[in-house]
Amino acid sequence: MSNGAHALIRTLVDARVTTCFTNPGTTELFLVEAMDSVPEMRTVLTLFEGVATGAADGYARMCGAPASTLLHLGPGLANGLANLHNARRAKIPLVNIVGDHARDHLRHDPPLRSDIETVARSVSSWVRTSREVGELAQDTAEAVRVACGPPAQVATLIVPADLTWAEGTAPALPPTASPQPTVPSDLIESAAERLRGSSRTAILLGGGALSERGVTAAGRIAATTGSRLLAERTAPRIERGAGLPVVERMPYWPELVSAHLDGLEHLILADAGPPVSFFAYAGQESSLVPAGCEVHHLTTPSCDVAMNLEALATVLGAAAIPAVQQPVRPTRPIGPLTAETVSQAIGALLPEGAIVADETLTSGGALARDTAGGPRHTWLPVAGGALGQGMPVAVGAAIACPERPVLALEGDGAALYSVQSLWTMARERLDVTVIVFNNRAYRIISTEFSRHGKEIGDKARLVSDLGDPNLDFVAIGTGFGVPSLRVEDAEQLADSLERAIREPGPHLIEAVIPAV
Amino acid sequence: MSNGAHALIRTLVDARVTTCFTNPGTTELFLVEAMDSVPEMRTVLTLFEGVATGAADGYARMCGAPASTLLHLGPGLANGLANLHNARRAKIPLVNIVGDHARDHLRHDPPLRSDIETVARSVSSWVRTSREVGELAQDTAEAVRVACGPPAQVATLIVPADLTWAEGTAPALPPTASPQPTVPSDLIESAAERLRGSSRTAILLGGGALSERGVTAAGRIAATTGSRLLAERTAPRIERGAGLPVVERMPYWPELVSAHLDGLEHLILADAGPPVSFFAYAGQESSLVPAGCEVHHLTTPSCDVAMNLEALATVLGAAAIPAVQQPVRPTRPIGPLTAETVSQAIGALLPEGAIVADETLTSGGALARDTAGGPRHTWLPVAGGALGQGMPVAVGAAIACPERPVLALEGDGAALYSVQSLWTMARERLDVTVIVFNNRAYRIISTEFSRHGKEIGDKARLVSDLGDPNLDFVAIGTGFGVPSLRVEDAEQLADSLERAIREPGPHLIEAVIPAV
Repeated sequence: MSNGAHALIRTLVDARVTTCFTNPGTTELFLVEAMDSVPEMRTVLTLFEGVATGAADGYARMCGAPASTLLHLGPGLANGLANLHNARRAKIPLVNIVGDHARDHLRHDPPLRSDIETVARSVSSWVRTSREVGELAQDTAEAVRVACGPPAQVATLIVPADLTWAEGTAPALPPTASPQPTVPSDLIESAAERLRGSSRTAILLGGGALSERGVTAAGRIAATTGSRLLAERTAPRIERGAGLPVVERMPYWPELVSAHLDGLEHLILADAGPPVSFFAYAGQESSLVPAGCEVHHLTTPSCDVAMNLEALATVLGAAAIPAVQQPVRPTRPIGPLTAETVSQAIGALLPEGAIVADETLTSGGALARDTAGGPRHTWLPVAGGALGQGMPVAVGAAIACPERPVLALEGDGAALYSVQSLWTMARERLDVTVIVFNNRAYRIISTEFSRHGKEIGDKARLVSDLGDPNLDFVAIGTGFGVPSLRVEDAEQLADSLERAIREPGPHLIEAVIPAV
Repeated sequence: MSNGAHALIRTLVDARVTTCFTNPGTTELFLVEAMDSVPEMRTVLTLFEGVATGAADGYARMCGAPASTLLHLGPGLANGLANLHNARRAKIPLVNIVGDHARDHLRHDPPLRSDIETVARSVSSWVRTSREVGELAQDTAEAVRVACGPPAQVATLIVPADLTWAEGTAPALPPTASPQPTVPSDLIESAAERLRGSSRTAILLGGGALSERGVTAAGRIAATTGSRLLAERTAPRIERGAGLPVVERMPYWPELVSAHLDGLEHLILADAGPPVSFFAYAGQESSLVPAGCEVHHLTTPSCDVAMNLEALATVLGAAAIPAVQQPVRPTRPIGPLTAETVSQAIGALLPEGAIVADETLTSGGALARDTAGGPRHTWLPVAGGALGQGMPVAVGAAIACPERPVLALEGDGAALYSVQSLWTMARERLDVTVIVFNNRAYRIISTEFSRHGKEIGDKARLVSDLGDPNLDFVAIGTGFGVPSLRVEDAEQLADSLERAIREPGPHLIEAVIPAV
């Protein structure tokens, strides 16, 4: 028998949730103490909760299994909410443990009392406040079970402090294995029929369809049927590089998506949603499904999409070996720094097995092309659209895969939402190289003004200009303990990137580029 | 007639909401554009939404009238939520404008779709999503009316993007003046009776009771009756210094509060809540009202507490002039940097009319004493307990009161939750001096471990130690564009502080102190 805190932490570890990203406070003291008696639990401190939740997301994207967070009351959860939105949208398994005041304390309305369940509900389909110490371990096991899915999701367990210190309970058994995924033969047959009947077909891959198994099966299908393979823009993880089938990532701007999909007769969704514009524009369609194109689903929420793609390949009698990307890299760039030369340097030097957390927006346009034929790597895009996830996701990925080099590609604006990530990279000696594409602007704002056919007035300029004063990312990185430098041209960037990749531990490289 | 965006911004300005703290995105473009056609609206860009909401809080604390925020979708609101918790707890008037997707766009489930109303509801008693362009201006006026109270509160208006670009509407009339506050003579008579009947009385002042009018009236009551005057620890704003009545600020630790209140027969709450421990401890009472002490309320939510205190003074026949604090300051410190010498330097040099945003926790113990007899100043404490409000509140206060010097006193841990504030200080050339009490620890965590009688194990040490690697606040401040320096001893601190106060614009001073 033990106290509630120990039972909770032991239950997590027994359920193979062995990493906890945290920024704890007084209500979580007993849970922190319990981690000392459960040495299998790795505890990672963050200076801001958005780092913790984003890191748990990145960890799960790489492991396929949840990490936990440990957050302090409603405000701590609130600080982590934007990255939980991203995890929710991307169907990432994640277990939040949120400390609350002792139950009797709440009726005295202490300052930090808040409606934690409501905050949690906006991002978690499963929210529970434990009621009895005897139920705490079981609630924890249930949170893990729900988080793992299918479908995977964000589960939030709220733990009154008095349950953590109450004695006389025991850990719960780990959740039983997830149910066997179903293989919906009707959906597979129907997709096969479309693929046989028309060459103007595309398969839009999302979620697990972009795993090595998924893209390999999709590549076999494409080789047999001539269908195109597309990757959902907000897919949380894409396996790519030389030796894997080529999958085109969907563009960001709606008119480019429309041009891309023009003429399709059938669009098969493999764990993806129908294409939609990120934002609405007055007088334009939100849906980007071409007129006359039929949309088919290959999966249900309880499916393993890679398994479905393999079944589809079999039904189609697809060749065992798909057409794959050949190795090809851009040359090492020379000359001035631009978004293109930075992208080129990354393509030229991308190391084997790299994990790339990509939070570039307007500056990242050439990255997909420049890295497509590089060595095998994993791409971690901005999943749910909320900024501030790139560096936290890199933290989590680096902790999940300590043997793999991690790159975090950041726009200057995006980098600042959870800039505190840098300190956790330094503390944990994570092998992350952060490259800041610093165009000294929220460039997306002025771009959108132009797209709406608007003049950029003084206030629009004010809210899109990050150049007064200039942000000095070298100073900021140094301040958080990460060796940082600013490069002046493409040669220096390539040299610095090569060195940063070679040396263990975190590095930050700032590349000031024109805001074209 | 104009579009919805223009009608909204014009309605805000007509209702005297003339400052907008923002971090906008594509869904707020038309609102940004509208600000250009309404020059009375001051637009302040922040790099993180917690800065925007905290600045709106600080602005309202100083002006007594709301600012607005302009936030991007659910994740933008989420990033500002912790400081909205603080504003909610402190009954600060604040109007959030949150952009949402165009209504028709939502049914396509775009990536950034989220349940904004649920997020908003956790901190706002008034939440509305506008439904028609013709109602947008009226909804805006209603948000301002509700925010202003009484009681003042956080109001959140969610604005679908298509309403901002729809044409054919007009601004709404500003809300009518707030209802006259009621003066509850029964509560005043009952308080007077207790004050006449026993000298073992105290008045606990919160909210508006700590305004100049409130403390002056309370001082007259105290001088006549011998009752003690206490300030609620989480009160959002305290007027103090030489020439005002002395009000003792309540201590943080529950046993100190109990010692402080021991022997009281009557406690009169003037816009304050009954004393409660910040956190619960196993086996200890949460309520800190002494046994046998009767609690009386002097106000209802629709009262003006300063008016009630004046009425109470009149009923008691109190002298017109209260006993006041005499001018007295600590001497300029010498020797090594400690929490005490830093506090002493602040006390020695506090400028006339200073606004002090105080987010020190374990390091700030001597500040109240060291500044009590300084020149007249305004203290802005941590109001709702969620960290990350000190520097944002300083930003808002400096914008509200450009002629007054602002100090932001920060613990190292607290400073990092919304460190992006520094950039807005630099951009807006705000006269803020940030002093970081850097003890390289979340000292509160290890203190709480000791208080619970616990050994500090490896994981507890890990989550309370900020010294691996050391945070370099000079580099961080410089990176965000604020002139920053580290001082080595108390003399240097005093010299630097004097210079920072004298020079306009922001400064940051880092004082590394022992974590005792």
